[in-house]
Amino acid sequence: MEVVNLEEKFERFLDYWNPKIVGEFNGQFVKLVKLKGEFVWHQHEQEDELFLVVNGRLRIKLRDREVLINPGEFLIVPKGIEHCPIADEECHVVLLEPVSTLNTGNVRDDRTVDELHRI
Amino acid sequence: MEVVNLEEKFERFLDYWNPKIVGEFNGQFVKLVKLKGEFVWHQHEQEDELFLVVNGRLRIKLRDREVLINPGEFLIVPKGIEHCPIADEECHVVLLEPVSTLNTGNVRDDRTVDELHRI
Repeated sequence: MEVVNLEEKFERFLDYWNPKIVGEFNGQFVKLVKLKGEFVWHQHEQEDELFLVVNGRLRIKLRDREVLINPGEFLIVPKGIEHCPIADEECHVVLLEPVSTLNTGNVRDDRTVDELHRI
Repeated sequence: MEVVNLEEKFERFLDYWNPKIVGEFNGQFVKLVKLKGEFVWHQHEQEDELFLVVNGRLRIKLRDREVLINPGEFLIVPKGIEHCPIADEECHVVLLEPVSTLNTGNVRDDRTVDELHRI
């Protein structure tokens, strides 16, 4: 049981689209991820996904609209909803989702991360 | 599905020790709470509890030590661990815990909140 400083943890890595585990509670991981550019359209069949933006701005394209998430704001994308995250500039995000969640959901491509690391 | 601005939500209430629901994902509530003063010693038998401090500083007394959580920091208190939150000055906290969680855990006193409200 330790206090986790988000900023200090974000300083520990540089790579994009590669979530790091910084906590676990009730079957959920707390993950930190740095985003830049456009991700892949995907969905998570069984898992809701919470995006909390800490730095930068995150756009999330949905099939019927697009939302913008600023620092201090979060969005919950319910299971089964297709989404495509886009960060025009570097963006730092806290992700909350079940330990079972694969970053690319129902899609497999070169950004799929099978092995998550704790930092 | 809406973007939630934490600061804007915190402006909607003034009372202490009375968590408000601002989101739900995977059986967890995202709750906002304003704290001031000392709470009651309690534990949650089945539920881990995540405290993310947004404003102010939160002390959490444990049976064997005390931890200090500053803005931008979080602590996960595992189920079964007795704890007593203390805010010397007003403190704004994001709580993540199962929808079943009672704020005073295994204890019932005048600060027990049976009915949570969404804001």
